[in-house]
Amino acid sequence: KFEIFNADSEISQQFVRLNVGGQRFMLKKETIRKRGVGRLLDIVNKSSECADAYFCPSNEYYFERPPMLFHIVYQFYLNGIIHQPTNLCPMDIIEELEYWRIVPDQYLASCCCAQQQEVDEDEMEDEEEKPNLFKSLKFGEIRRSIWNMIEEPTSGGKAQIFALFSVFFVLVSISGLVLGSLPDLQYERLLPDGKVEREPLPFFGYIEYVCIIWFTMEYGLKMLVSAERSKTARQLLNIIDLLAILPFLIEMLLFIFGISTEQLRDLKGAFLVIRILRVLRVIRVLKLGRYSSGLQMFGKTLKASFRQLGMMAMVVMTGVIFFSTLVYFLEKDEPNTKFASIPAACWWCIVTMTTVGYGDLTPVTVPGKLVATGAIACGVLVLALPITIIVDNFMKVAETERPGGGNRFRTSTFQAK
Amino acid sequence: KFEIFNADSEISQQFVRLNVGGQRFMLKKETIRKRGVGRLLDIVNKSSECADAYFCPSNEYYFERPPMLFHIVYQFYLNGIIHQPTNLCPMDIIEELEYWRIVPDQYLASCCCAQQQEVDEDEMEDEEEKPNLFKSLKFGEIRRSIWNMIEEPTSGGKAQIFALFSVFFVLVSISGLVLGSLPDLQYERLLPDGKVEREPLPFFGYIEYVCIIWFTMEYGLKMLVSAERSKTARQLLNIIDLLAILPFLIEMLLFIFGISTEQLRDLKGAFLVIRILRVLRVIRVLKLGRYSSGLQMFGKTLKASFRQLGMMAMVVMTGVIFFSTLVYFLEKDEPNTKFASIPAACWWCIVTMTTVGYGDLTPVTVPGKLVATGAIACGVLVLALPITIIVDNFMKVAETERPGGGNRFRTSTFQAK
Amino acid sequence: KFEIFNADSEISQQFVRLNVGGQRFMLKKETIRKRGVGRLLDIVNKSSECADAYFCPSNEYYFERPPMLFHIVYQFYLNGIIHQPTNLCPMDIIEELEYWRIVPDQYLASCCCAQQQEVDEDEMEDEEEKPNLFKSLKFGEIRRSIWNMIEEPTSGGKAQIFALFSVFFVLVSISGLVLGSLPDLQYERLLPDGKVEREPLPFFGYIEYVCIIWFTMEYGLKMLVSAERSKTARQLLNIIDLLAILPFLIEMLLFIFGISTEQLRDLKGAFLVIRILRVLRVIRVLKLGRYSSGLQMFGKTLKASFRQLGMMAMVVMTGVIFFSTLVYFLEKDEPNTKFASIPAACWWCIVTMTTVGYGDLTPVTVPGKLVATGAIACGVLVLALPITIIVDNFMKVAETERPGGGNRFRTSTFQAK
Amino acid sequence: KFEIFNADSEISQQFVRLNVGGQRFMLKKETIRKRGVGRLLDIVNKSSECADAYFCPSNEYYFERPPMLFHIVYQFYLNGIIHQPTNLCPMDIIEELEYWRIVPDQYLASCCCAQQQEVDEDEMEDEEEKPNLFKSLKFGEIRRSIWNMIEEPTSGGKAQIFALFSVFFVLVSISGLVLGSLPDLQYERLLPDGKVEREPLPFFGYIEYVCIIWFTMEYGLKMLVSAERSKTARQLLNIIDLLAILPFLIEMLLFIFGISTEQLRDLKGAFLVIRILRVLRVIRVLKLGRYSSGLQMFGKTLKASFRQLGMMAMVVMTGVIFFSTLVYFLEKDEPNTKFASIPAACWWCIVTMTTVGYGDLTPVTVPGKLVATGAIACGVLVLALPITIIVDNFMKVAETERPGGGNRFRTSTFQAK
Ligand SMILES: [K+]
Ligand SMILES: [K+]
Repeated sequence: KFEIFNADSEISQQFVRLNVGGQRFMLKKETIRKRGVGRLLDIVNKSSECADAYFCPSNEYYFERPPMLFHIVYQFYLNGIIHQPTNLCPMDIIEELEYWRIVPDQYLASCCCAQQQEVDEDEMEDEEEKPNLFKSLKFGEIRRSIWNMIEEPTSGGKAQIFALFSVFFVLVSISGLVLGSLPDLQYERLLPDGKVEREPLPFFGYIEYVCIIWFTMEYGLKMLVSAERSKTARQLLNIIDLLAILPFLIEMLLFIFGISTEQLRDLKGAFLVIRILRVLRVIRVLKLGRYSSGLQMFGKTLKASFRQLGMMAMVVMTGVIFFSTLVYFLEKDEPNTKFASIPAACWWCIVTMTTVGYGDLTPVTVPGKLVATGAIACGVLVLALPITIIVDNFMKVAETERPGGGNRFRTSTFQAK
Repeated sequence: KFEIFNADSEISQQFVRLNVGGQRFMLKKETIRKRGVGRLLDIVNKSSECADAYFCPSNEYYFERPPMLFHIVYQFYLNGIIHQPTNLCPMDIIEELEYWRIVPDQYLASCCCAQQQEVDEDEMEDEEEKPNLFKSLKFGEIRRSIWNMIEEPTSGGKAQIFALFSVFFVLVSISGLVLGSLPDLQYERLLPDGKVEREPLPFFGYIEYVCIIWFTMEYGLKMLVSAERSKTARQLLNIIDLLAILPFLIEMLLFIFGISTEQLRDLKGAFLVIRILRVLRVIRVLKLGRYSSGLQMFGKTLKASFRQLGMMAMVVMTGVIFFSTLVYFLEKDEPNTKFASIPAACWWCIVTMTTVGYGDLTPVTVPGKLVATGAIACGVLVLALPITIIVDNFMKVAETERPGGGNRFRTSTFQAK
Repeated sequence: KFEIFNADSEISQQFVRLNVGGQRFMLKKETIRKRGVGRLLDIVNKSSECADAYFCPSNEYYFERPPMLFHIVYQFYLNGIIHQPTNLCPMDIIEELEYWRIVPDQYLASCCCAQQQEVDEDEMEDEEEKPNLFKSLKFGEIRRSIWNMIEEPTSGGKAQIFALFSVFFVLVSISGLVLGSLPDLQYERLLPDGKVEREPLPFFGYIEYVCIIWFTMEYGLKMLVSAERSKTARQLLNIIDLLAILPFLIEMLLFIFGISTEQLRDLKGAFLVIRILRVLRVIRVLKLGRYSSGLQMFGKTLKASFRQLGMMAMVVMTGVIFFSTLVYFLEKDEPNTKFASIPAACWWCIVTMTTVGYGDLTPVTVPGKLVATGAIACGVLVLALPITIIVDNFMKVAETERPGGGNRFRTSTFQAK
Repeated sequence: KFEIFNADSEISQQFVRLNVGGQRFMLKKETIRKRGVGRLLDIVNKSSECADAYFCPSNEYYFERPPMLFHIVYQFYLNGIIHQPTNLCPMDIIEELEYWRIVPDQYLASCCCAQQQEVDEDEMEDEEEKPNLFKSLKFGEIRRSIWNMIEEPTSGGKAQIFALFSVFFVLVSISGLVLGSLPDLQYERLLPDGKVEREPLPFFGYIEYVCIIWFTMEYGLKMLVSAERSKTARQLLNIIDLLAILPFLIEMLLFIFGISTEQLRDLKGAFLVIRILRVLRVIRVLKLGRYSSGLQMFGKTLKASFRQLGMMAMVVMTGVIFFSTLVYFLEKDEPNTKFASIPAACWWCIVTMTTVGYGDLTPVTVPGKLVATGAIACGVLVLALPITIIVDNFMKVAETERPGGGNRFRTSTFQAK
């Protein structure tokens, strides 16, 4: 590799002398050829018109560009990667690279945009793969247009109207659930065993049926047209959709088998299941996640901080068990104490460590109060951590959403172009 | 564009060779002429006295300036915009640009001061447009001086005295409202229907009338002299001013139509309106916003974080409905439960998620307590987000207010000069 | 100013050519002389031994120093101020400046270390002025040594023992106060009017007298020896010292005038004063501020954030009045409501907005609960601001305390050397 | 040192001329030899093949490397330390130093990675010293393998199974403790003095014995094989292990001396000790700290912020005593007040300042409420500080754990290589 050059002419043969805004740089022609892109390659390939001038006395190609920014280009030709000095404006770097005919996407150093990509990855997968999948299917075009209408609320007029309907039915369904719980909108029903139960007016039942028909149709249609059924079915938002119609589906199933819910009332276990199924209706409110950027960002933030939050949950749980056991043993012999067992003390401990402090049970002995002080101190310290973590991750997620924002250039900035 | 230069003299004819503190830069004369400003233009236009020296042997203009900072000037001549490397002191850059006879205001790269301008925009509008508007109006000069007295508390002695009076009347009015609610300063009044009602002593009524006359005068005068009435009327602070006198105006109107408030007492709906109108009196306390920089900064911060807070409110609402429905179904069958309906559970959920924790209703069943734990965890996580957002925006707003502060130079820095 | 140089020799006569690590810089000899300091001045003054080498062919002085850092030195010679690029290590810059024989203290650009100095100022005043003051006084040397013993706990062995005693008496006095409030350590005393009052055991009285004698002696001695009595008396810590012995001094005074506290019992106003004076004893706990770095840092932080906290207090107060008035009007007609007046509602509002949430009074009507939700939201947002401010200022204060810490060099770094 | 060079050849004899990517640097051969490492040393030692080319006309060694990064290398040759400009990518610097054959570990400037090392130190000690210690001992190899099995859960298959058992027994033991406190799983026992006491079912006692045998074995084995017994015994995690089996050991001891716990029931003091010992069982939950990264990070964070948290605890304690004394004196004469003594008021004050707000005791007088407002304000401000501190330190600790993460290169990055 190493060579000795005795004459200036020899050097000029193998090297490109660059005068960038008055400052001198040198590069081997071979290095430029190896990289295989950019304005300098054109220079080497004899199309010297790419430079601004050629100075014969010094054998230099002159470029009227800021010398400060050429350092990034120089380093790119050597290593094939682009590092971003944090003190320079990312927009500035992008423009400069454009002049030098380098498309930065493929050469960005992973160490300068690592955190970024983590978050990006998920979305890219979804968006890039699907369009091709429909092509090879029967009724591909129709299925694709229905799919877009249901799943891509921003993809056009029909999709927006569909989204509007979907949100409307979610809101109606939730409103029905909430209003139906008001005593003024309930009636008393006599049960077979003589007890009286309050139930929402029948009107709410009808609304509920309409909503459930829509949701079932929506889910069924989606599954019908989906190009990758098993993958679609495993997505969080679609699992929510399924859970939202599950109570109805099960009641249907029971009906087919000739069992009415009335008869299940006597079987204690089965009745409990029915009850839980009813409560599941509230999961519909999470369907809004598909249409609210706020919910989506929160969801992504939680996903990104999953590991750290888990770690902190461990700390909180240890603290809760530690302090509640202590308080239980210190308080359990007080007359009329509400610290009847350690689980009861756990409830107190959670309420205390999070500084909610209902006051439904409070320690009354002096050692109990000292332990409570410790629990509070521990709570204040521990809870500061997940907050920091989530805030940090939220900022990253919010950054990703904003096109071209932030003070460092990133993969997404280029991809938006 | 591309040219080959065979002799040094040719190069010197078309290029300016710069020796900035010993380091060499080059620029085409043409490029400098295109930009059309700065010290280098004067050099090109033969007034070479602008340089510190001219070195014949190398045909260089010598400038005794820091080479590090000349990069910014060089880049400006090429692209016509000024980027600010974050590692350099903004004051330093300003001084250097001054030497090179470049006024940075017009050339600042938007990518380096984007966030800034968002906040600035609103204020500039107001301040720059109005002075001219009065010129073309009847009694322009008088109207303008009255306008300044009312709207610009910092514009002079008279304006300050006016502001003092205004604050004084707000404080008197609010004090009257607060003191009038003390049972010791109330008397019992027999209503026509035999009931007894407690009312503030008549003394408070007189004070109230004086205050309301001042406020009405203030608002009327402002509207009278305003150059753009409809725009003035739509400003937030003026809407507050109007709302503060609305109850009085309506009572006036009713009086003109011969209806006393006593007679309205029998009409349930109308009486409610009267009551709400009375409560509206408290809106006067927001009038202080005009004179308190704290309130103004808080208002601006809220405005700047409006979108993000809205998104988070959506998340909180979803969480509230989700957890309160769950708790309602889990707790509703307990004897003497206070979770009588989902809206009641919502109140509990808001109080719990914000860690206020009154303890007026608390879950008693084990599943209820588990849901409560989830709600608390969710609340702690969700509430961390708007806090971060608002803090972030507050910092930006606070930065804007401080003249010349901060560690990056910004549009406002230049405008202050 | 402008000159044309035809020959290289001419240039070398007026300019210094510098070769710093292989890169070339130039400076007028005149400019260096004007600045009047540093290694380059010695070069100009013919003591060329200061350079590492002299290259005749190019008339250059060679310095084996990093070229990157010389930019800062170059700029210093031009403008006489030192800016600190944030990307470079401050320790690095300090060392480089030392090589170039520049003492950075006097030349630091105010824009690069502005925030710092604000905080520093106060302390410097105190520490630098006093030593000289004692010289011109009678018994100057004795007074100074007593002064140091009392006021500078770190100044030597005697001072430390004195501080130990002082802290001991504060702790004894406060312990006496706290223990004396325990019913087990009280006895019942029959008052002249037949009522029974519980008082601490006489033992605590004796302790109290001993403590008070020490505190009075301490304060008296300090005032006696102080070089600037009026200034000393006006310092916060000394005002606290005075308040801590005030109750005792007043009782003394009354005793001299022949009035016993027993007789004052009948005069309602005077008795109240006595009571307040007793409570004032607790102010002694603040005397610990002199010896605890934690308390001092907190005090300084509060002082530094005074203006911003005042602004935020204004926002909180406006919010409290606004929401409590609303809640009062909405809740006052409920049976058995505790929202008896606006001030009572204010108490609720403070407790709610700070998320303390005692639950001693809670809204029961639906509109009241909606207002409460607003108040909580407002509280969560408003309280985020002072926290940020105080945290920010605390960090700055903590930074000042640490010698040589932080990632920017600052005035204090140099002064510590 | 100073020399004058008349001819170019002389200069070339003593200096190395470097052309790094077209930009020129110079260094004395002597300086390079003094440093004694790196690619440049090889150049000086006549193995000029280390350069990319040699240009005879200008006597330059050519290196095709980015000039921007060579500044760091240059500075290293001069001072022997490596400073890291914060604007450059750390990965980039590492690669460049590798090219120049410099191992950065030993030359990192302490000022650029000071905070880092503080945290690192502790761990390194432990990990590096031990392996050698076993060599010189009897049965060294066996003891070492047992030690690794117990103390290094990540060291292999056997160690993981041991860790699994250990965690299992901790969980079983804690579950036994918690479940045994449920009234449904307790039986009533008649005490000799006629009273009735509820105790966990005997089943829990058996489980407890099994667990304790495991823990004792674990601790005993560890002590048996440890190479440095006294050091091992003084480690926090081992103290916890000892405390977890202490109650059992003491009961054993008593049993050997012929004393049953039944007999101690009559001695009040001894019985209290027994009770405390039982509560100590909960300390086992902290044994999980050995296996949970969350707990370990929290522990390290607390350790790193120990000094600052102590300072803040001082501030909180002062505030608590101050405000609780005030409230006590203001509230103590109210009928049925719960502010019975200053310690009772302290409990209120802690609960209030941390915004927990149980509401079990609340001030009722107006001055009491004003003091409470002050306490809340103080609490909100004071508690912001430890949160900031702990968050800061947690971030540093979390940074250390992540291999190669963060946006500055650090000691640990190199050591991981
Ligand atoms: K609370
Ligand atoms: K509470």
